[in-house]
Amino acid sequence: MVKVEIITIGDELLIGQVVDTNSSWMSQQLNKVGFDVQYKTTVGDVESDILDAFERAFSRVSVVLVTGGIGPTKDDITKHTLCRFFNARLVFDLQTLKTVENVMAGLHRDLNELTRNQAYVPDNCTVIQNKAGTAPVTWFERNGKILVSMPGVPYEMKAAMSNDIIPRLQAFFPVSAAILHRTFWVKNYSESLLSMQLETFECALPDFIKLAYLPTSGLIRLRLTGKSDNEESLAGEMQKQRDKLWNLLQNDIVSEADEDLEITLDKLLREKGLTLSVAESCTGGKLAGLFTAIPGCSRYFKGGVVSYSNEAKRDVLGVNFSDIEEHGAVSRPVVEQMAWGARKIFHSDCSIATTGIAGPDGGTPGKPVGTVWIAVSYNDKLHAQKFHFSQNRESNILRACNTGMQLLLEIIFSHQ
Amino acid sequence: MVKVEIITIGDELLIGQVVDTNSSWMSQQLNKVGFDVQYKTTVGDVESDILDAFERAFSRVSVVLVTGGIGPTKDDITKHTLCRFFNARLVFDLQTLKTVENVMAGLHRDLNELTRNQAYVPDNCTVIQNKAGTAPVTWFERNGKILVSMPGVPYEMKAAMSNDIIPRLQAFFPVSAAILHRTFWVKNYSESLLSMQLETFECALPDFIKLAYLPTSGLIRLRLTGKSDNEESLAGEMQKQRDKLWNLLQNDIVSEADEDLEITLDKLLREKGLTLSVAESCTGGKLAGLFTAIPGCSRYFKGGVVSYSNEAKRDVLGVNFSDIEEHGAVSRPVVEQMAWGARKIFHSDCSIATTGIAGPDGGTPGKPVGTVWIAVSYNDKLHAQKFHFSQNRESNILRACNTGMQLLLEIIFSHQ
Repeated sequence: MVKVEIITIGDELLIGQVVDTNSSWMSQQLNKVGFDVQYKTTVGDVESDILDAFERAFSRVSVVLVTGGIGPTKDDITKHTLCRFFNARLVFDLQTLKTVENVMAGLHRDLNELTRNQAYVPDNCTVIQNKAGTAPVTWFERNGKILVSMPGVPYEMKAAMSNDIIPRLQAFFPVSAAILHRTFWVKNYSESLLSMQLETFECALPDFIKLAYLPTSGLIRLRLTGKSDNEESLAGEMQKQRDKLWNLLQNDIVSEADEDLEITLDKLLREKGLTLSVAESCTGGKLAGLFTAIPGCSRYFKGGVVSYSNEAKRDVLGVNFSDIEEHGAVSRPVVEQMAWGARKIFHSDCSIATTGIAGPDGGTPGKPVGTVWIAVSYNDKLHAQKFHFSQNRESNILRACNTGMQLLLEIIFSHQ
Repeated sequence: MVKVEIITIGDELLIGQVVDTNSSWMSQQLNKVGFDVQYKTTVGDVESDILDAFERAFSRVSVVLVTGGIGPTKDDITKHTLCRFFNARLVFDLQTLKTVENVMAGLHRDLNELTRNQAYVPDNCTVIQNKAGTAPVTWFERNGKILVSMPGVPYEMKAAMSNDIIPRLQAFFPVSAAILHRTFWVKNYSESLLSMQLETFECALPDFIKLAYLPTSGLIRLRLTGKSDNEESLAGEMQKQRDKLWNLLQNDIVSEADEDLEITLDKLLREKGLTLSVAESCTGGKLAGLFTAIPGCSRYFKGGVVSYSNEAKRDVLGVNFSDIEEHGAVSRPVVEQMAWGARKIFHSDCSIATTGIAGPDGGTPGKPVGTVWIAVSYNDKLHAQKFHFSQNRESNILRACNTGMQLLLEIIFSHQ
């Protein structure tokens, strides 16, 4: 199993101005091809700290992936620090210059002194041309170990990882080991209840398979991870354990896809040729945003209404105003009419509707913060249900989105 | 300056199943009160790696903040590892039991064996009661240094940090130092052009003030960070440098708020008593989601339409179908009618509308991926503008959101 450390560099990460979404994406991709990320380290734009992190990473893993700190501005010092660490000097590289010129031309911008300087590269590395930005990707080898420095801009990093770095790593380390995951979305359990239910199962697992609980957003994501040098026998053992789990939990497993629920629904809706619309009150656009983040969703996603006022529920979605007055905006009749309303104005086959009290304010004794009504409809079927989530606004929004998607999956599966 | 290291524990972070949003929030809060996060480290649920991380952190900082790995299930081993590191044994704590019972009662759930076990705590720490979950927060002291272990669940961590951990840290380290930030959102520049424009300014900065560039989402976030033992003189110097920057960039500074643009708009709309609606095509609900994530936004946010099909643009927003046929969905007439349409159906004072080709598919030679039309309206004013963003879907969605908010800020400021 090849061990990997990810080092992210930048003061903006340490003062919290930027959330690091890169390293989780990198981990996922590496895992798929059998590389095992064991450590992540973040340091600022400080030479001694960067050198220290390089030194330590080289002492404990075989692959060090470094992001950030290679922009054209003065605060970015990673390139110079790499030269120091690898005893390199900077040389001007014409091929890199050409790549930088192409990138700038694509942005309808002229080359200037600083972007031109991006073509200076360490003399003892392999340069991987970055087609998405001006900072070159550099690949260093030392004692059979690899260090790669790449940009921190997410889409530049992703392009470099997918097109160049991962294929090169696979060629450099002909990996004989395998890492396999199986994921299960489980409903109706708390983390501790599920753990008790699975205690015997868990204790009987072989050493090389681990069970983990990821309690988030209304469902529990249960993960089996197996690591072994023999992929075939590992796959067989994973399947065996998967079947045992399925026997224990069957009706409570919502999905086995190792992906977010919107991806599962995306595939299902395309496959069945169904169209979708949403009517959102408490989720406020988040649900639509989850689907529209997926490329090609316009094939089935027709649209959504964020009806954040009672008037919008009436005027745009056609909810009966007397029902809002009589039952309140967070009620069964309102959420049902929202779901039908979305279907009607967007001419879709399915819909999800949410209305609730996300908090922190707006709760009443009868309808405390965390009360959420969700409705899903599919053809002539409609299902509405009331939930009590948490005190936390962010968590309530996410749970309502996930629960809405779960209910839609269920109504489609149960009426096919 | 008290140095801090954040250690996050959990296999889910290393295989990329979860994005760590905790540590950036923690950094922000710590920074505000003069604590300096210098390192972040992520390790898996592996005892030797956790012990190693503790050891190293204690050798280089004064405060070690640890999140994760303290749930009730078997895969969580942080508590036992803490006992090993601090030579502690677990004792049953009645006060913690009471807290756990209260938390479970609030969730309408009974105590079970595993949640009851959460009341076992190390015997040489201070227990901080976690009112939001069942895992206790534990505070250890050694040689004048502090280690705090807390849950990885974001809202539990946030409650513990705000209510207990930060006040205790401030009491333990009567901090004499100050960290001050000034942030500027700058438009119309690339990173390298801005850097050249500011070269003389940057070279003349005093040692204790650093300038950093955060190029994201269509605007550049420029940050001045000052660190000093004398807060008063630092504040004076920061103000002086801020004024110099302002002179150099004035018309290109969109906002000086050290916050995301939706927060700036949230404050402005409340202050002016203005209401807002949105009409989103390419941003697909993301823009509405940014506003509705803010507590209390219902005071000004009336709603939004995600019009992901031409029919929705016509039927829900009232866009003239012949304009769509003649000019295409990504065009000035369509975005203008979307902005007015949202105003009309939601009865709002302002609106933002977006329509574009987010990618990766759907581009044409005349309208390549990244082409986005954005319109903002305020009272009787409307401004529409065409942009060319990137090849990347995620980046295009974010840039369209930020640019839309920037244009709305500008139209409000220029007509007040």
